[in-house]
Amino acid sequence: MSRLVMKFGGTSVADIDRIRNAARHVKREVEAGHEIAVVVSAMAGVTNQLVAWCEAALKERRIFDAREYDAVVATGEEVTAGLMAIALQDFDINARSWQGWQLPILTSNAHGPARILDVAGDELIRRFKERKEVAVIAGFQGVHKETGRITTLGRGGSDTSAVAVAAAIRADRCDIYTDVDGVYTSDPRVVPRAQRLDKIAFEEMLELASLGAKVMQVRSVELGMVHNVRIFVRSSFDSPDSIDPHGNPPGTLICDEGEIMEQQTVTGIAFSRDEAQISIRQVQDKPGVAAAIFGPLAEANINVDMIVQNVSADGRTTDLTFTVPAADYQRSLDTIAKAKAAIGYARLDGATDVAKISVIGIGMRSHAGVAAQAFHALAERAINIRAITTSEIKFSLLIDAAFTELAVRTLHTLYGLDKAA
Amino acid sequence: MSRLVMKFGGTSVADIDRIRNAARHVKREVEAGHEIAVVVSAMAGVTNQLVAWCEAALKERRIFDAREYDAVVATGEEVTAGLMAIALQDFDINARSWQGWQLPILTSNAHGPARILDVAGDELIRRFKERKEVAVIAGFQGVHKETGRITTLGRGGSDTSAVAVAAAIRADRCDIYTDVDGVYTSDPRVVPRAQRLDKIAFEEMLELASLGAKVMQVRSVELGMVHNVRIFVRSSFDSPDSIDPHGNPPGTLICDEGEIMEQQTVTGIAFSRDEAQISIRQVQDKPGVAAAIFGPLAEANINVDMIVQNVSADGRTTDLTFTVPAADYQRSLDTIAKAKAAIGYARLDGATDVAKISVIGIGMRSHAGVAAQAFHALAERAINIRAITTSEIKFSLLIDAAFTELAVRTLHTLYGLDKAA
Repeated sequence: MSRLVMKFGGTSVADIDRIRNAARHVKREVEAGHEIAVVVSAMAGVTNQLVAWCEAALKERRIFDAREYDAVVATGEEVTAGLMAIALQDFDINARSWQGWQLPILTSNAHGPARILDVAGDELIRRFKERKEVAVIAGFQGVHKETGRITTLGRGGSDTSAVAVAAAIRADRCDIYTDVDGVYTSDPRVVPRAQRLDKIAFEEMLELASLGAKVMQVRSVELGMVHNVRIFVRSSFDSPDSIDPHGNPPGTLICDEGEIMEQQTVTGIAFSRDEAQISIRQVQDKPGVAAAIFGPLAEANINVDMIVQNVSADGRTTDLTFTVPAADYQRSLDTIAKAKAAIGYARLDGATDVAKISVIGIGMRSHAGVAAQAFHALAERAINIRAITTSEIKFSLLIDAAFTELAVRTLHTLYGLDKAA
Repeated sequence: MSRLVMKFGGTSVADIDRIRNAARHVKREVEAGHEIAVVVSAMAGVTNQLVAWCEAALKERRIFDAREYDAVVATGEEVTAGLMAIALQDFDINARSWQGWQLPILTSNAHGPARILDVAGDELIRRFKERKEVAVIAGFQGVHKETGRITTLGRGGSDTSAVAVAAAIRADRCDIYTDVDGVYTSDPRVVPRAQRLDKIAFEEMLELASLGAKVMQVRSVELGMVHNVRIFVRSSFDSPDSIDPHGNPPGTLICDEGEIMEQQTVTGIAFSRDEAQISIRQVQDKPGVAAAIFGPLAEANINVDMIVQNVSADGRTTDLTFTVPAADYQRSLDTIAKAKAAIGYARLDGATDVAKISVIGIGMRSHAGVAAQAFHALAERAINIRAITTSEIKFSLLIDAAFTELAVRTLHTLYGLDKAA
C-alpha cells in the first residue's frame, strides 16, 4: 500500500466527461489499496471566464484588488473539487472535497503569486485510516493565516499545491496527470526520434522547466526537490490501465538523482527561437559597468538570459553580449542607448534571428569534454556558434536561427538520445 | 446617517453591466453617509450551470452528496461578491467581499435547506466605523459550525441572508433590489388599476408570500418579522436617483403594522388558478378521520391548502372539501381512493377548473363584515362561491376559474384599492 497524490490539470478536467475519466484513474489506485489525495485545477475555460469578468468589472481603475481577484478566480478549482467528489462517489468511492481554507493550506499574503507556508495533512491521514476517504483538494489556492483572505498561487499553482500536499501527507509519490505523457529528450515536433524519459533528476527537470518546457512549473519542481517528493508525470488521456513495454504505466518519474541507476551523460536538448542577441562593443572594462547595463534593463522589466563577457584583451575595453526575449529587442536597444553615457561604449549591435540551444544532463558533472563534443559536431555541420554559456549541468549555445532544427537533431544523435528506429 | 443592507438578486447582477449598475445604487447610499452591507445572489444563469454540472457528474447514483452540491453551487454567490467589490472599488468606494465562512454565517447542518443560526456582525460594524468599508456578502450560503462544511439556504436564500445580516448589524433597513418595483395590491397583469403599496405589514406580506407572490420568500419575511427588520422592496432597474411623487425612492416598505399610520382594511387581493378541489362526501364524522385523509396525502408529498369541513347535520356524516395543486389532482384522488376503507366515505368528486381568491388585510381584525361585503359583491355578479376559509387577516374563496379576473377586479374595486384613473 502506498500513499499517493494525484493531480489533474485543466485539460484533464475540462468537462464532466473528463472529470469522470479522471475519477476512473483514481478508482484504479483506490482499488489497488492506496491512500489517495486528489488535487484538481479549474475546468478548462472556467478560469478565463472568471478573469474576463474581473476585468470587465473594472472601468476606471487599472489594477484589481488582488484579494478580490483571488476570491473570484479561486472558485474555479472549488467547483472542480466538488464535482470530482460527486463523480468519485458515483463510482462508490468515499470522497470529500477540501477548499484551501478548509484544510487549511496556509500561504503568504502575496495575493496572485502567494507562497505556500504550511499544509495541514494530519486530518487527511486520519481520514485515510479511519474512513478510507479520498481527499479531493482544490488546487491553486490557499488562505492567509492572519487575514483569512483567499490567496492564489499564480500560474501552474495547482502543481505546487499537489507537491506541497504530497510533502504534508508524506506521500510516496505525486502523480501529475496532464495532456502529455511525460518528459521527452527533446521536442518531438522538431526531433522525431525524441523519446520519453523514464526518469529525470530534479535538477535536470528544473533546468528544463526554466527553459520553458511546459510540463511542469519551476516552483513545483523546486518544492519537490526540497522535500524530496517523487513526481510522476503521465497523461490523463491514456486508458486508466495502460502500461508501457516494461509493464509500468507510461510516464516520467522526476526524482532524486540517486534513484536513477544508469545516469545518461546528457538527458535532454532544449531550444528557444524566441531570443534576441545584443552586443555592446568596446565597453569600458571597469567596476560598476555591469550594473550600469543591467540595472536599467531590470527596471524596464526586461528578462536578460545569457550573458557573455570576455576577459579584456587590452585591459581597457571589452565586448559584452547578452540575450533578451525577441519581443523586447527594440526596447532593450533603446534602454541601453539611453544609458550610453553611464555605461561608456563604442558601438551597439544585435540580431533577432538567433536561437538558443541548451544541453542538459547531471552526468556532465563527472564527464569532461561534453561541451567540446558539441562544438566539434556543430563545426562539422558548419554551424557557427555565436556565444556560449555553461553551468554545472547545462551548457547553452547561441546560433543562427536557421540552423535550429539541424543543431538540435545533431546534438540529439551525438549524445545517444535517439530512440531505436 | 443610517445603517443599511442592500440586497441584489440574480437578475439585478445578471451580468457585469448590471453589477456596475447595482454598484451605482450602493454609491448613492455611501455618498449619503450611510453604513452599507451589500448581499448578492449569483449572476443569472451561473447557478443553473453549476447545478447542471453536478447532475452530469452523477450517472450511477440518483442522489448527490448535498455537502458537495452545496460547495459547488455556493461558488456562484462568491463570484458575484468579489466582482461587486471590484466594481465598488472602481467607483472609489472602499469595499471588501465576505464569503459565508469568512464572516461567518453559521447555519444548521441541513445541507440544501440550511437554517441560519448566527451571523457575526461586530467585525462589520467595526470596519464601518474605522475604515468606512462597505461589506459585500455572498448570499445564500453559510458554514456549519462543527463540520466546517459550506451550506446553502435553499430557494430565495439570499433574501434570508440579507435579513439575517440586517438583524446582526442592527441595520435601520434592509433594501431588497429586485426586478419588480414593489408589492402591488394585486397582479397588474390581471388588474390594470392595481397600485404599488407604500407600506405593508409583515403579517400581510407573509400571507402574500405564502400565496405565491414572487417578491420575497416566506422565510425571509418571517425572519424580518421576528427581528423587526424593516424591509424595503425596490427595483434595481430604476435609475439610482429616481423618486416617486412624494419624493421617496419608489418601492414598498415591509414593516411592523404600528408603523403604518392609515391602515387600509384590505391591502391586497391574491389569486391562484393552479388549484384543484376535492370533495369527499358523507365522511364518517368521528375522531381520527381527518388523520386518515390527510396522513396519506402528506406521505405522498401533496400540499393541501384550503380545508373546509362543515359541522355535521345529522351527527353521523359530513362533507369535506380541500384543495391541492392542480398538478397533483389525479394523484390525490388515487391516494384518497386507496385509503377509502380507513376513511369510510360514500363518494369522491372534484374539479380542476377552480380558482382561489384571497383577500388580505390586517384591518380585517378590527373591521367586522369585510368578508360579507365580498359575498354580496360577488353575488351581484352571479359568481358562485364553492368554498370559504378565513383566518384573522385573510379570507379565501374558491370559485369557478372562468370568473377569476372578474372576481379579482370586483373585489379590488370594492375595497378601494383601484388607483386613480
